[in-house]
Amino acid sequence: VLNRRDFPFGVGALTEGEAEARFHGEVVPAMQAAGLPAILCGMVGSNLGWRAVPYLDCPAGFAAMGAALHPVAENVWIVPGLRAQRPDGGPDVMRGEEVQVFGWVAMAEDRQAGEHLICHPGTHAKWIRLKDGRIDTFVTAMTGELFALARQHSSLRAPGAVEDEAAFALGLAAAADGGALASRMFTARARVVGGDLPAASAESYLSGLLIGAEVAATPALLGAGPGARVEVIGDPALCRLYCKALERKEYSTTTTDGDAAVIAGLTALFRMKTQS
Amino acid sequence: VLNRRDFPFGVGALTEGEAEARFHGEVVPAMQAAGLPAILCGMVGSNLGWRAVPYLDCPAGFAAMGAALHPVAENVWIVPGLRAQRPDGGPDVMRGEEVQVFGWVAMAEDRQAGEHLICHPGTHAKWIRLKDGRIDTFVTAMTGELFALARQHSSLRAPGAVEDEAAFALGLAAAADGGALASRMFTARARVVGGDLPAASAESYLSGLLIGAEVAATPALLGAGPGARVEVIGDPALCRLYCKALERKEYSTTTTDGDAAVIAGLTALFRMKTQS
Repeated sequence: VLNRRDFPFGVGALTEGEAEARFHGEVVPAMQAAGLPAILCGMVGSNLGWRAVPYLDCPAGFAAMGAALHPVAENVWIVPGLRAQRPDGGPDVMRGEEVQVFGWVAMAEDRQAGEHLICHPGTHAKWIRLKDGRIDTFVTAMTGELFALARQHSSLRAPGAVEDEAAFALGLAAAADGGALASRMFTARARVVGGDLPAASAESYLSGLLIGAEVAATPALLGAGPGARVEVIGDPALCRLYCKALERKEYSTTTTDGDAAVIAGLTALFRMKTQS
Repeated sequence: VLNRRDFPFGVGALTEGEAEARFHGEVVPAMQAAGLPAILCGMVGSNLGWRAVPYLDCPAGFAAMGAALHPVAENVWIVPGLRAQRPDGGPDVMRGEEVQVFGWVAMAEDRQAGEHLICHPGTHAKWIRLKDGRIDTFVTAMTGELFALARQHSSLRAPGAVEDEAAFALGLAAAADGGALASRMFTARARVVGGDLPAASAESYLSGLLIGAEVAATPALLGAGPGARVEVIGDPALCRLYCKALERKEYSTTTTDGDAAVIAGLTALFRMKTQS
């Protein structure tokens, strides 16, 4: 990577049609001025982004994703998102994480073969089953969004939050098997008004409770359980919290920086595009 | 009941100290003008209300609650809330529902004895174990609040919602054992963008999913399960939704209007107070 530039659009803040105008006005000229093609992934391909690009159905591999790159301007493509049938019923969808997954695969030679369980924490965390280089299926957990809703808008919000590792660990323990979440979430308030927990520690407790519940209950939806190895890809600080929760449940973990993974994925797509 | 008057204060909308001023300025004069004593219950006794009245610890019966009425003005008392140790750890708290529970007990002669499982749906639903006329323990599920957060502030919000019974039933089924809630909640969005569910039906689906998850997982925290009888007390429309979820899981149900229950409870407290 020789250069990096952020365009802080934010898919939630864009009005209808604004994404297309801003990409045309700001991103494309910047790429063209640098003499570079552009490969775009994530919500830019949603109905809230530049263009609604149809999902590619799972199982899906890197070659299929590369073949479905969607041209939107000269030397500019959008990567299609993925759709899977959830093992517990109904569809699930992702946009952007698939590039990180294939980037992770491209980062080492032995990742093409066999089965891997990948966890990508975030606003909408993705749990992905990779089989012989293809994304077999996946499920989303909206843990990050629940945490944000709770701390910003709910009766659990508590001003003056401090990071409290012991409270995070208490939350992990209180998550138990991950069931009865709507009830266990309330303990973040009940412990404060009931005199068990300082108000400033309630946010760390809630973070532990929500991540603990996700880690306790979500892998089972993909047929995985304690003892398995989980490849955690994403924001390093968030990955550390997930690793704590996973290791407590006797998973083994590896961690990959999400930024490095997305660049590896985009680079592999660029090579495929320019060599074809 | 000869008369009824609402004072729409709303505990979430009051600034610090405002509750006391408004009760003194509006409620107390209205009671005194009518020559009546006042017994107040609910969040009026919290640190956001008129006066922070200490919790009474469970197990607690009607007589103990009546003996702990907290005087705040001439002929005006606040009912203390209850605190319990949750079977799954930590404290839980309620303010107001206890009066409905004891009102329900007072409404029929055979409710003093034996064990009863009571469900009080709402913003913070309460599941209560009543044993020989005393509230033994209880747990809260913040299902109603999660639903409100999701429909108002989350990526699941969908304008133009319509009531859709089939989508509600689909949500009940998707709740399964109540586990992996943060993941199952996301299906309300994935089914819409994945093409499985009309956007206008997503809210009914989410309602079924959240109530179904609560009913599937919360009774077990109190050692209860399918086949048991659940006394549902609260808003009649909400009780109907809970009864659907409970009957699907093979619970038997009875329903009591929460308004009738609170009046029965306050009347019993008034009689105890004026006869002592």
